Amino acid sequence: MDFQKVIAVATRRGIFQSAFDAYGGLAGFIDYGPVGVKMRRRILETWRKLYVIDAGCLELDGALIGPEALFQASGHLGEFDDALVNCEDCKKQFRADHLVDGGEEMSRDELAKAISGMACPGCGATLSEMTSFNLMFSTGVGAGKGLPGYLRPETAQSIFLAFPWLLRQNRGKLPFAAAQIGRSFRNEISPRQGPLRMREFTQMEVEHFFLPNEEPLLSDDLRDVTINLLDANGKETSSTVGEGFDEGIIGSSLVACHLARAQKFLTTIGVPDKKLRFRQHGSNEMAHYSSDCWDGEINTSLGWVEVVGVAHRGDYDLSAHGNASSKEFRVAVPGTEKETEVWVPDIGKLGKEFKGDAKFILEAIRDVDLQPGFSVDVNGSKIELTSEYMSQKTERRSEMVYANVVEPSFGLDRILYCLLESSWKSDGEREWISLPQETSPYDLLVAPLMTKDGLDDKAHEIMKSAIDIGVDAYYDEAGSIGRRYARADEIGIFFSMTVDHQTLEDGTVTLRERDSKDQNRLSIEDALNKVRR
Amino acid sequence: MDFQKVIAVATRRGIFQSAFDAYGGLAGFIDYGPVGVKMRRRILETWRKLYVIDAGCLELDGALIGPEALFQASGHLGEFDDALVNCEDCKKQFRADHLVDGGEEMSRDELAKAISGMACPGCGATLSEMTSFNLMFSTGVGAGKGLPGYLRPETAQSIFLAFPWLLRQNRGKLPFAAAQIGRSFRNEISPRQGPLRMREFTQMEVEHFFLPNEEPLLSDDLRDVTINLLDANGKETSSTVGEGFDEGIIGSSLVACHLARAQKFLTTIGVPDKKLRFRQHGSNEMAHYSSDCWDGEINTSLGWVEVVGVAHRGDYDLSAHGNASSKEFRVAVPGTEKETEVWVPDIGKLGKEFKGDAKFILEAIRDVDLQPGFSVDVNGSKIELTSEYMSQKTERRSEMVYANVVEPSFGLDRILYCLLESSWKSDGEREWISLPQETSPYDLLVAPLMTKDGLDDKAHEIMKSAIDIGVDAYYDEAGSIGRRYARADEIGIFFSMTVDHQTLEDGTVTLRERDSKDQNRLSIEDALNKVRR
Repeated sequence: MDFQKVIAVATRRGIFQSAFDAYGGLAGFIDYGPVGVKMRRRILETWRKLYVIDAGCLELDGALIGPEALFQASGHLGEFDDALVNCEDCKKQFRADHLVDGGEEMSRDELAKAISGMACPGCGATLSEMTSFNLMFSTGVGAGKGLPGYLRPETAQSIFLAFPWLLRQNRGKLPFAAAQIGRSFRNEISPRQGPLRMREFTQMEVEHFFLPNEEPLLSDDLRDVTINLLDANGKETSSTVGEGFDEGIIGSSLVACHLARAQKFLTTIGVPDKKLRFRQHGSNEMAHYSSDCWDGEINTSLGWVEVVGVAHRGDYDLSAHGNASSKEFRVAVPGTEKETEVWVPDIGKLGKEFKGDAKFILEAIRDVDLQPGFSVDVNGSKIELTSEYMSQKTERRSEMVYANVVEPSFGLDRILYCLLESSWKSDGEREWISLPQETSPYDLLVAPLMTKDGLDDKAHEIMKSAIDIGVDAYYDEAGSIGRRYARADEIGIFFSMTVDHQTLEDGTVTLRERDSKDQNRLSIEDALNKVRR
Repeated sequence: MDFQKVIAVATRRGIFQSAFDAYGGLAGFIDYGPVGVKMRRRILETWRKLYVIDAGCLELDGALIGPEALFQASGHLGEFDDALVNCEDCKKQFRADHLVDGGEEMSRDELAKAISGMACPGCGATLSEMTSFNLMFSTGVGAGKGLPGYLRPETAQSIFLAFPWLLRQNRGKLPFAAAQIGRSFRNEISPRQGPLRMREFTQMEVEHFFLPNEEPLLSDDLRDVTINLLDANGKETSSTVGEGFDEGIIGSSLVACHLARAQKFLTTIGVPDKKLRFRQHGSNEMAHYSSDCWDGEINTSLGWVEVVGVAHRGDYDLSAHGNASSKEFRVAVPGTEKETEVWVPDIGKLGKEFKGDAKFILEAIRDVDLQPGFSVDVNGSKIELTSEYMSQKTERRSEMVYANVVEPSFGLDRILYCLLESSWKSDGEREWISLPQETSPYDLLVAPLMTKDGLDDKAHEIMKSAIDIGVDAYYDEAGSIGRRYARADEIGIFFSMTVDHQTLEDGTVTLRERDSKDQNRLSIEDALNKVRR
């Protein structure tokens, strides 16, 4: 199936449509419909099972709008931009790297040289000089012009900023991993390609934190995962993750873990192994703070599409926020405790001064590294705790370091697109989406042969039983059974059940399996047990 | 439990924290942590079960950023604002209606009069004149200044705009309902009260569409739901929804349905019936297009908090988009078909002119009311179909009308806050969150009595079995069993299981029920079956 066909089927069958067409359209925004929402949820459930439940990640759901200082510290205000050229004649705007062959690999200087004097592909006039365009959506928070704020360009920053809080939830211990599913935003200059390049998209990201000298090892169950690797030297291998790591192709044991997990996740939801590869970044492509970085890519009609990045980010993000903010982003190194002077609250004085509020102050400073000047929110106003409310004493304290992090980062919209394309089957007679039951939008079509003689009532009754045991069932009574099968196939419903006159007599139904078209006559109970995941 | 205590416990135990404290804070934004995400998900699962699965709503997930024309048509650009006053001396900004007793009930003129000459509550200087402040966050889409765009102030507009698409998914038939869970944004002037007044919040909304003369009836199962009503005349009654409707207190049968559903939902997730009421809007409070409107409110330490609104919106939204946009937002009235001249595509000409693209064009116009000038997206460029690509013929067509809609709209953040407050229990010895298992963040604490003699290995093994059968289990081995119970109580874990030496001998564990503190010795299998939801 090619791109246009995916878009047409998706629009027709309620998977997704481009948003705002009624108002002339706005490129880079999509609405997901009833079938698309179900497919997305099933992909997310599989991801959550693997990362949050099995791997025990702490899940976060952070705010989408953030203040300027955050994105100043993260580097996004300074560096998260595209090279832009305008045509002053026809007013069109272009990404400079899309106008030059191999532009995406060029430095900004090389690009500027290549663009210089170039004619507008739209109208032929000479293009203006190249400028930089920051890809964050900006807004103002509060009345008037408001404080400058930005829509987050990645969910990751919410996790980094919440690190001290999450660390406390993990009782101060490393390693731990935090996961987040949520919207992110990039103000692309001229997005094409529907769900492959969006201005608003859904990410699933994990930040796996560890002490610099205690990187988690590659576990035995992940060692054995087979994977296609394309290393930075252009060498392709298909081997186990363990072999890739032992041979030094994969540079970090935790990166190796997450390549294996990503492979497991993507094949579980239905990406064919032979269409999936992990491509290592070369040193020119990799961020300066990263020591090893891989893109998980799926082969589509439009070429290889990146759906996940796995990167070793060192301590870049945590130290950036530690240096720029008022919070402690470091962690205590176990075994390095020694006697240290620390500040402790003077409970008597706090009680005298703040009366009933004192207990909220004590609650708020319970886990913090208290210092004179620490401020606390009480009933909406800030109270600064000067040194008169505390005293010094000697305690055993540890050496503090910044944790390192490995990040797998998935793009849900692209994954769904690639799945639709790769799972489309056609045998000349019919066309169907062939996904595993886990990611099919519905487990079961319930179809009465006709809407009389009580067949529809019986079908509704079966629907209810199916729903009660957790089967995601879809009811369809319109048109011939053949047409209903065809519609069910087109959105990949895994099983179809036909209710006919015999059902009323002996309680049996016909159960059809989507991929094989095999039909079996079964009791309602046996059929539902087969369908149940 | 009061507000300060909720905030303190929520922050300490990973339910939520105010976001961006490291950068001086930004009022109105929250991060949800590991426990909060779980509680939110369980509330959402219950909601989805009731609305999407049982009631068969079509689910949508729309874009958060929208173009100016959309919010012009919806009325949000013109009317969605607060009255603002500035202090030019201390630069503070205030919502005018918060500065005057009874200000929230005043008209803008009354407010302006009351504010005139008033002193700044901050510094005492005279306040400036009252102005209007639009509550939508604005941004620019695309390079340069970009096209004006706004973050949606309610999820509802995504559904209204997608109505023609959703109607096609429902094969053109009314009534149907569409549901959406997602973020919305309001640029509040000076939000206080943490999760009760947020700039970024999560809504669960349903739009239930029906033909003007065919409003769905109140079904028998919903008639019998008992509910506390406070009508527009200030009269309080506790009766069944059926009685409230029969006596004319509730003005619409579909509003009555949705009051009953809202009552069922809120009590299922654990809101005590006696803390819940539905308050009818008076004619001065109600939007001009609305004929009946109720707020579901929960009684808290801060007074009655609105957590859901149920409103009859007439055809206001659909006709607004129908009039302002290029799309058909009306629906055919069954039984009104008559002979009409219509346009049909000239397949031969399309094939000749557009070759391989013709099939995409035909796919795109499959369900539309074709008119000369209709434009189609093919391979990223727009093709306008002039009358030369179509011909007229006579077909049977129907009368077209705008559907009416009843909308229940829930605020997830407020619901979670109210649940935390109303479910907090204390008996002098211990404090615990007493939620139904359905909305408790975890089903089970697994706690080895000590971390030696293989008890922790056994506990891990039980964790795995629990997870395999879908139990949401939490492992804790730190500190005394008493402390672990206390920590589990504080986040409302429903059951606690202790693994001790006897477990290794006879395979039994101690299972403790959170609310009663009852402890029973059971086999591992029996215990897990009891815990399983």
